[in-house]
Amino acid sequence: MAYSERILDAITSPSDLKCLTDDELEILCTELREEMITVTSQNGGHLASSLGAVETIVALHSLMDCPRDRIVFDVGHQAYAHKLLTGRAKDFSTLRQFGGITGFPTPLESEYDVHPSGHASDSLSVALGLALARDLRGDDQKIVAVIGDASLSGGMAFEALNHIGQEKIPMVIVLNDNGMSISRPVGALVRHLGNLRMSNRYIHTRDSIQEAMEDGGRMGESLLNLGRNMKDSVKHLMNSGSMMFEQLGIVCTAPIDGHDITALKETFRAALQSKSPVLVHVVTKKGAGYLPAETAPERFHGIGPFDIETGESPKKATSNPTFTSVFGQAIVAEAQRDEDVVAITAAMPSGTGLKSFAERFPDRFYDTGITEEHAIGMAAGLAFAGKKPVVAMYSTFLQRAIDQLAIDVALPQANVVLAVDRAGLVGDDGPTHHGAFDLAYLRMIPGMRILAPSDEGELVRALHTALTLEGPVAVRYPRGEAFGALVPEDPEAFEEGRSRLVQEGSDGAILAFGSMLSQALEAARILEGEGLGVRVVDMRWVKPIDEDAAAAAAETGFVVTVEDGTLAGGAGSAVGEFLLREGIACRFASVGLPDRFVPQGKVPVLYRELGMDAQGIAEAFRRIRRKG
Amino acid sequence: MAYSERILDAITSPSDLKCLTDDELEILCTELREEMITVTSQNGGHLASSLGAVETIVALHSLMDCPRDRIVFDVGHQAYAHKLLTGRAKDFSTLRQFGGITGFPTPLESEYDVHPSGHASDSLSVALGLALARDLRGDDQKIVAVIGDASLSGGMAFEALNHIGQEKIPMVIVLNDNGMSISRPVGALVRHLGNLRMSNRYIHTRDSIQEAMEDGGRMGESLLNLGRNMKDSVKHLMNSGSMMFEQLGIVCTAPIDGHDITALKETFRAALQSKSPVLVHVVTKKGAGYLPAETAPERFHGIGPFDIETGESPKKATSNPTFTSVFGQAIVAEAQRDEDVVAITAAMPSGTGLKSFAERFPDRFYDTGITEEHAIGMAAGLAFAGKKPVVAMYSTFLQRAIDQLAIDVALPQANVVLAVDRAGLVGDDGPTHHGAFDLAYLRMIPGMRILAPSDEGELVRALHTALTLEGPVAVRYPRGEAFGALVPEDPEAFEEGRSRLVQEGSDGAILAFGSMLSQALEAARILEGEGLGVRVVDMRWVKPIDEDAAAAAAETGFVVTVEDGTLAGGAGSAVGEFLLREGIACRFASVGLPDRFVPQGKVPVLYRELGMDAQGIAEAFRRIRRKG
Repeated sequence: MAYSERILDAITSPSDLKCLTDDELEILCTELREEMITVTSQNGGHLASSLGAVETIVALHSLMDCPRDRIVFDVGHQAYAHKLLTGRAKDFSTLRQFGGITGFPTPLESEYDVHPSGHASDSLSVALGLALARDLRGDDQKIVAVIGDASLSGGMAFEALNHIGQEKIPMVIVLNDNGMSISRPVGALVRHLGNLRMSNRYIHTRDSIQEAMEDGGRMGESLLNLGRNMKDSVKHLMNSGSMMFEQLGIVCTAPIDGHDITALKETFRAALQSKSPVLVHVVTKKGAGYLPAETAPERFHGIGPFDIETGESPKKATSNPTFTSVFGQAIVAEAQRDEDVVAITAAMPSGTGLKSFAERFPDRFYDTGITEEHAIGMAAGLAFAGKKPVVAMYSTFLQRAIDQLAIDVALPQANVVLAVDRAGLVGDDGPTHHGAFDLAYLRMIPGMRILAPSDEGELVRALHTALTLEGPVAVRYPRGEAFGALVPEDPEAFEEGRSRLVQEGSDGAILAFGSMLSQALEAARILEGEGLGVRVVDMRWVKPIDEDAAAAAAETGFVVTVEDGTLAGGAGSAVGEFLLREGIACRFASVGLPDRFVPQGKVPVLYRELGMDAQGIAEAFRRIRRKG
Repeated sequence: MAYSERILDAITSPSDLKCLTDDELEILCTELREEMITVTSQNGGHLASSLGAVETIVALHSLMDCPRDRIVFDVGHQAYAHKLLTGRAKDFSTLRQFGGITGFPTPLESEYDVHPSGHASDSLSVALGLALARDLRGDDQKIVAVIGDASLSGGMAFEALNHIGQEKIPMVIVLNDNGMSISRPVGALVRHLGNLRMSNRYIHTRDSIQEAMEDGGRMGESLLNLGRNMKDSVKHLMNSGSMMFEQLGIVCTAPIDGHDITALKETFRAALQSKSPVLVHVVTKKGAGYLPAETAPERFHGIGPFDIETGESPKKATSNPTFTSVFGQAIVAEAQRDEDVVAITAAMPSGTGLKSFAERFPDRFYDTGITEEHAIGMAAGLAFAGKKPVVAMYSTFLQRAIDQLAIDVALPQANVVLAVDRAGLVGDDGPTHHGAFDLAYLRMIPGMRILAPSDEGELVRALHTALTLEGPVAVRYPRGEAFGALVPEDPEAFEEGRSRLVQEGSDGAILAFGSMLSQALEAARILEGEGLGVRVVDMRWVKPIDEDAAAAAAETGFVVTVEDGTLAGGAGSAVGEFLLREGIACRFASVGLPDRFVPQGKVPVLYRELGMDAQGIAEAFRRIRRKG
């Protein structure tokens, strides 16, 4: 089939789907999969979830009238088909690139996108808000939320379900149940869903899925066309009864086959007519239609470029370990030394590098599901009972548990260590995923200490230091490849609140926080070429700040702070507060994230755009020198 | 019975309860109630919840071996009996006073208190952490969490239940079900509990409670001795079945009478022996044993001093309205002008002043229960659909929804107005309730605007301003009585980012944020007496900050900022960031909350202790003058 013959290319808006037969919709699903696989094989992306949701999205758009009707996606990484059907197919090759199509739905990009989805479990609240507003106006729009089974473990989703059950107003909740959170399923609720899934009627469907897998497809051996083989398997079976959703007042369908367009349309049509909230339980296969992704859905959850035929990711030329993997090894070493060390993740055992720990110390490892609040509260409990919990979490998701950090951890000075991964800019995932705020929100909490290691050797020392201290300590480090620094086997603890002088100089000083040290050193080299000798300090601690180092830096007359977090209340602000409080005069500039949400893009590109690369730091230095 | 004959006075530790008969325990319950009523009638406090939990706490301590065993209280305002039984009876008359017994459990006060409880829904996570640590050690401590029905609506509690159901380890969850959150019951879950409560068997108990009410008691007409009349009514009935807890894997008892010592002991004894998690459903009456509190449990939830005989609170000599009530009237006025204005509270309709709004506009009012995350997400949805939601929430509880503010509200620039009540120090409730952090955490969020009105007239204008702007705006104001300022009937909007010059002066400037303006003006008067003419500016906006005003202030050579939030990243820090960025030199000091948790106490006392009163501000000013 030549490119110009694609149904996809004829779609100008989702209303065009209404003219297509179910057979044509199935062909469209295959085309959508091909497009996603092609583009993500180049750009990387959240492929597995988006493959699993293709038929669900096509069926919804074929029945709804968006953007008047609204589809709210929970964790938008399932929504590529939605993007392709709503005017973004032409530009889809720019997915996740600077200035291109974003990896998650966002109303800043399209009127078809309701809210910036990227953090789990918020879709039901947003959808209820839309439905309440509709009823106030006396309108009749259809409101649909599409939420994965893993996202249901998040407390915010339960809060919304509880309220939806009370309000009893028309809205449809599509439970996209792939029996798999980002990693393994977690929690009693998931087990409950699993029991439903294994009912006799449903086993029939799973067999059909298996058959379809074995049939093979068009796009190489690995691409499958699921829809054709399965449409007769399981029809919609409303009212399975006895589910917890029904106890909350929400009518619930029996599980239906999420890759059967006809069945999906039939059930969605009925649900969209309901006068009260309905949960449609759709069973999907993560990675559906692309064998490598079906076989390794976790690897294909968020993946870099890969070879379409084999599914293999190219080996990188560079081979430094990531900060994440160094942390993963370091916590295993710490746990060997101290049996009180336990580790906690909120649904990210692989992403946070805790897989080895989980294998070595299964009894001391807890995956709580997508439950940042509970994870921090539970860590406090473990600490009160004498354990040394290390909670590994992405900076952006830790935002969910700031209150628990303050009240449950910092106020009683619990010995909780936070391993804050993905701190700073994360790149292609964009503004919902950048770790922009952790320095500011951790710094405001009394009794919290914050370490920002500048390389992987420092990270190992920082983790060790954190475990030796009483009270809460955060160790924050960025996404991606580290610098190839030596990693100590038997790390020594840092002195609290002491920085490390990396390079002497008397024409000014750069105070660098965390991995921005490398940019700072490069800036100093640039300035050296201009005849300026600049002191460079690895500050190590964001809290307590090294006041002596700050005061000494000020004596050079010119101080530039460098961090990869927001400047509003961040590390530079901490230095500034000290200088102003003490009445120490100097020319001062802070380099870091501006007071706006930073878009997606490769991190070096973003640094350049934001004046945070070596050139930008050097220019900030020149600016304050000129003023002087 | 003379004072010296009280059983309570003979209790040196909770293990003493093991020697008492059930009849003696019932007498002890009456004594505990008398003590609580006597002390709170003087000091104020959370009386109603604590009265309801007396028998539950006595029964637990009579069976457990604390502090080796652990009782984790959710929202510790139910825990006065626990305090009285664990070595704090002697000092209980200092309840909630500066340096006295705190109003909530805290491990900083007693080894019998597990964690600082004050924010709802965290007890199950903490208890699970304790239980997991116990099992790692191979110990056999009993772990009990006591949680109210309202706290169960919080998502964090559900996250924990889901995990507890998976872990299946021994722990006891006591559901203290008084059929009433702080205000009216909210959510489908609460309705579900209500259905259980109304089962035939249970109606029997309710009748018994009614009889007991009518019998009267010893301490005046209003104090009842419940236990004696009810111990034969409802025995423990394990395994009621069909509850949502059981679907999560947690064994659940039928509702039992929470004022029947014998029944409670029998059920708790069985539950404490269980090898898997058990939820004991205890039905209590909020305010039990004190008729005024039973009749008006909401008023007696958190109450000031009152007359024991009548339950009446003394009329205050001063009669300025509170900030809360002024907000409550202002939002009604705004809603009359604009039908798109809707209001949201998370279980605090009365506390946030929204009762009038709820009566006038029931269709435009939403009480989501104790669900800050969902409330903010739902507000975003309402805003996306064209409404103008005003979310009224206490500063300390808004900490639960910072991520939602960033991702769901600020990133898409949703028109959500935050009415941040109880900002700054709240007084007697102490560190879990002070609104110490809102300026710091709101300021770090891009696109967020923050108004800090200095009096009630300014509050009305600020709310009006917030509703005229596009994008999110927070209006933050303190607890308690306002200043008697004129309140405009037809308020005009402020110019964005513009301060108000209150008093001219050229020897220095005080930049005041919010209600601290009154302290700043008083400080200026003190300094005037010393011959110094100080400019005083009501900054109005914390974000965007009035840079012109800050620059003009710096021209006087001496700038003091004054705020009632944390200095780390707060409003003074915002001024400092600007001055440093622009290279504007001046002597500078910031007055505000230090980098530690602030204890309970009367606000004027705390201001004095922290150097935040007029004298403290004047001294900060003198200090930078001296340095100059």
